[in-house]
Amino acid sequence: MMMMQRSSPQLWRKMGLKAFLFSTCSSTPSLSPPLVNKSLPILGPELPEVWIPNSSSPPPTNNRRSPFIFNHDAHEQTAVVIDGKLMADEIRSVIADEVSRMKSAIGKVPRLAVILVGERKDSQTYVRNKIKACQEVGIMSVMTELPEDCAESEVLNAVSSFNENPAVHGILVQLPLPQHMDEEKILNVVSLEKDVDGFHPLNIGNLAMTGREPLFIPCTPKACIELLLRSNVEIMGKKAVVIGRSNIVGLPTSLLLQRHHATVSVVHAFTKNPEEITREADIVVSAAGVANLVRGNWLKPGAIVIDVGTNPVKDPDSEYGYSLTGDVCYEEAVKVASAITPVPGGVGPMTIAMLLSNTLDSAKRAYRFT
Amino acid sequence: MMMMQRSSPQLWRKMGLKAFLFSTCSSTPSLSPPLVNKSLPILGPELPEVWIPNSSSPPPTNNRRSPFIFNHDAHEQTAVVIDGKLMADEIRSVIADEVSRMKSAIGKVPRLAVILVGERKDSQTYVRNKIKACQEVGIMSVMTELPEDCAESEVLNAVSSFNENPAVHGILVQLPLPQHMDEEKILNVVSLEKDVDGFHPLNIGNLAMTGREPLFIPCTPKACIELLLRSNVEIMGKKAVVIGRSNIVGLPTSLLLQRHHATVSVVHAFTKNPEEITREADIVVSAAGVANLVRGNWLKPGAIVIDVGTNPVKDPDSEYGYSLTGDVCYEEAVKVASAITPVPGGVGPMTIAMLLSNTLDSAKRAYRFT
Repeated sequence: MMMMQRSSPQLWRKMGLKAFLFSTCSSTPSLSPPLVNKSLPILGPELPEVWIPNSSSPPPTNNRRSPFIFNHDAHEQTAVVIDGKLMADEIRSVIADEVSRMKSAIGKVPRLAVILVGERKDSQTYVRNKIKACQEVGIMSVMTELPEDCAESEVLNAVSSFNENPAVHGILVQLPLPQHMDEEKILNVVSLEKDVDGFHPLNIGNLAMTGREPLFIPCTPKACIELLLRSNVEIMGKKAVVIGRSNIVGLPTSLLLQRHHATVSVVHAFTKNPEEITREADIVVSAAGVANLVRGNWLKPGAIVIDVGTNPVKDPDSEYGYSLTGDVCYEEAVKVASAITPVPGGVGPMTIAMLLSNTLDSAKRAYRFT
Repeated sequence: MMMMQRSSPQLWRKMGLKAFLFSTCSSTPSLSPPLVNKSLPILGPELPEVWIPNSSSPPPTNNRRSPFIFNHDAHEQTAVVIDGKLMADEIRSVIADEVSRMKSAIGKVPRLAVILVGERKDSQTYVRNKIKACQEVGIMSVMTELPEDCAESEVLNAVSSFNENPAVHGILVQLPLPQHMDEEKILNVVSLEKDVDGFHPLNIGNLAMTGREPLFIPCTPKACIELLLRSNVEIMGKKAVVIGRSNIVGLPTSLLLQRHHATVSVVHAFTKNPEEITREADIVVSAAGVANLVRGNWLKPGAIVIDVGTNPVKDPDSEYGYSLTGDVCYEEAVKVASAITPVPGGVGPMTIAMLLSNTLDSAKRAYRFT
């Protein structure tokens, strides 16, 4: 049969994965690989997703409080800033009205249960923000906190108890869980009807398949689409590039954009020329989790940029010693794009609004309240 | 907020969907669309998938028995023909050995149940071929035939009865079902452990998600990857374009290619410049269901082409009055590509081998036979 040239291992060397390469190569298929009894090869090898930002010049300091920005010539900015906070506030106001209407009509309110394991500062902050957001719209919340070293069974019990409680409409297990726990196993236990994060594979399958409807759309992907729709961006027929393919953001965002009839390409750590591919896109959603990965020269002039990244970057001026930076080099992108979400203040607040929206939807479904 | 220019309705007019356009436009989001209680807009509108082949010159007669082909200069052919039949035969031989080993060891053989509703000639042919293929490798098969006008409940009963039968390891409901039946409802009843077609949304979700494993990979997508692997095509890091996004072929094929770390773009009927996007691809999988859609000038020189299309085209010379033609204009593609699957004799036979493989895997799982 045909012999195809293998791709150069240069990329791998660059990634410091030389040793890994050889262990992988030895398991790549020969002319007639054994098929029977081996489902893994046909599924593709599991590999770590390591991004190597490849631009020649270093990115400018991506801190909008820096002197760099204050000296920045405003005339160079072409992009409209998509104000995620403002849009999220509008939605939260509608949700608050709906919660209030539900309370008056049937004497019930939606309730979100949050399970937090361990003491990660970022997780604590996220959970605190979500609970505060619930309070502000009248959604009840209940939290179970477990220590880092608790047994997996304790987390499973907490999930089960919320599953069985008819007054709970949404269950959120804050990720990441401690290393010794089986995340998949725990998430699989969350009742489908209360999976407001939408991470269950049945939900993802129904999101992927034409003609099917998931019970919940994952919050961040839903936030990205909501931001586009509210900015009057036409998605149908547009070229969209999603950077990153995580189960919770990149993958479902690509599926959702495709449901809106965009032509979607997914760029990941194994993509050889991410900047070229991204430069073709009318809509770019970046969810790689790499600060300043997407440079100005990655963008087509006039592109719409949704920046999902919230990467902690050292910042001595900040109260916490770090500030959050997007995947997109904002100072460069703002001169090329036609619209862009800031970090913070873009996708983040909208994601929380979508969580509230999913929780409300779930309660409405549970009480058959329309 | 920002006002974005809407895309020209020309495409729509061309598609004769003018009336449809306006009904759609009126439901596109305004500045602040109502979010709460409306999950459909965020999921994107459901639209018919109508392909408009757009090439200026008509395709040559795509019948390899035509004089056109016999006059064809063999020196112009650059592509290796990927012999799906030969590769499938190799796999079937391995499966036959495995079935025989299972029978000797535990006195059991795999069994496939097929449900055929109505009298569509093509469905009858497909089913006949599958049953014949089972026989040849020693897999038992059992078929339930129901009339076109039977009640949905009869089909559901047939599925349930096979679900409960421990001697049945795979259940195949031949599609399409008659119009009056709810395909989704019926497919959802097939036991996950016997869903050898892999069409259940939980399977698709597990195929889509990194770190998860579906119980079964849908047969045609699995066949496409198997053909690539057996042809020693390196998938990782390559640009792949999947043309078509059906639940049973295009979608799962794109997910599977991504699991192999290709950079995947999905082209569909709403893609504005399918030829340009396809021309970028190292690997092209076409599953649009449109004869001769993919012309030679859609391909990058040296591309690998997997043609899933089996489109009936009138052929007075054929016994049945028609012959099967791929999505790819073979005569043109063969001069540009470095490898290509023929139709018939490419994906088709490999798909049947994958069905046998899935049925064997299912029986092994049921009997814990390794």
